[in-house]
Amino acid sequence: MKLYYSPGACSLGIHVILEEIGRPFEAVRSPIKEGALQTPEFQALNPKGKVPTLVRDDGSVLTQFTAIAFWLGAANPGAGLLPADPEGQARALEIVDFATGSIHMQGFSRLFNQARFAPSEADHPKVKEQGAALAAKGFADVDRMWKGGDWALPSGYSVADAALFFVEFWAVKRMGMSLPPRLQAHFERMLARPAVQRALATEGLA
Amino acid sequence: MKLYYSPGACSLGIHVILEEIGRPFEAVRSPIKEGALQTPEFQALNPKGKVPTLVRDDGSVLTQFTAIAFWLGAANPGAGLLPADPEGQARALEIVDFATGSIHMQGFSRLFNQARFAPSEADHPKVKEQGAALAAKGFADVDRMWKGGDWALPSGYSVADAALFFVEFWAVKRMGMSLPPRLQAHFERMLARPAVQRALATEGLA
Ligand SMILES: N[C@@H](CCC(=O)N[C@@H](CS)C(=O)NCC(=O)O)C(=O)O
Ligand SMILES: N[C@@H](CCC(=O)N[C@@H](CS)C(=O)NCC(=O)O)C(=O)O
Repeated sequence: MKLYYSPGACSLGIHVILEEIGRPFEAVRSPIKEGALQTPEFQALNPKGKVPTLVRDDGSVLTQFTAIAFWLGAANPGAGLLPADPEGQARALEIVDFATGSIHMQGFSRLFNQARFAPSEADHPKVKEQGAALAAKGFADVDRMWKGGDWALPSGYSVADAALFFVEFWAVKRMGMSLPPRLQAHFERMLARPAVQRALATEGLA
Repeated sequence: MKLYYSPGACSLGIHVILEEIGRPFEAVRSPIKEGALQTPEFQALNPKGKVPTLVRDDGSVLTQFTAIAFWLGAANPGAGLLPADPEGQARALEIVDFATGSIHMQGFSRLFNQARFAPSEADHPKVKEQGAALAAKGFADVDRMWKGGDWALPSGYSVADAALFFVEFWAVKRMGMSLPPRLQAHFERMLARPAVQRALATEGLA
């Protein structure tokens, strides 16, 4: 199996999941800023030009964080990263989708790349401000809707924690934001996991 | 079961799924423009302030299109709207996530609400242009990565078709965009389904 990742991008969440599963995989460094997702080779794999992109052992390609996280969890039941019941699976997807689709793509995207939102440079500080507010609101919503204990799901550690981890990592390590206390504690619990430490080390983020 | 929807919003996709399942449900009209998602009652249900929001028979609330679509499919196996195997489920999620997280939230959001992206009104035409380009690129990617026949998955009609439907509906009926021929044919096939016609009629879009 091959995970195409860009160091510190949202693919970090999938990287953590692969390390938790512990089966051998290849992490293919593909830095966005160096144009690695725009090469003909990468575009042939994933015309959407995004990481995470997963190439499975049979050569088939799976895209979209939510789909990859679900599939890795479901196809590796021994790792215990996804509940087996539809209710638990839906609750995992609810968090993964909100972390990737809203906190990341509405919040952090504005913090990282204002030009994608507002053509005029004069507006970029305002776009940043909106991004910070959307990310903070997203974390507050996760906190308010928390159904788990130490981990996001009541059934225990799951792919949902890995999805929350990469946005928490961006908040704390890249933006110096403070998280609601419950999420700060969750982030620290994640940092203590050997699988998380291995993923960070491979990506050069340790 | 109660679906909170805003007429013609992305909740239309979940509305279609509920009509396909055919069990009784209540469709609660909650127009975004009339502030229906900002009332204390709605915020108590879903602090994220978004539709689709589903209240199940046990009173529990499920949010995020992807999670709701998955759960409805998985909890109603008789309706045949979600493959039973992890591979098929992941392929369904891959499409649902791309339709909702990218084509909708990156593409159409810019077409519908430029002020959320660019503070300066002078930039709004450019934001609209970017939205149109992102939506068109999204449809082209779906077309290029198509694995099904008449329906998006090779296994047949599924929740993925309902997710594609609401973005196709926006493209054709709201923006007058033209779709890749395969998706135009898919859209017409969707319009011919009685469940789709019932959802459109309830929302006042027929
Ligand atoms: N919602 C997508 C997000 C993918 C995404 O936006 N990835 C970013 C990295 S965090 C990327 O590849 N960006 C490259 C680009 O947009 O050029 C998913 O779930 O996979
Ligand atoms: N990605 C979210 C999208 C939800 C969303 O953005 N819904 C829109 C309607 S299409 C909404 O409720 N907007 C109200 C608002 O933002 O005030 C999901 O999957 O549920």
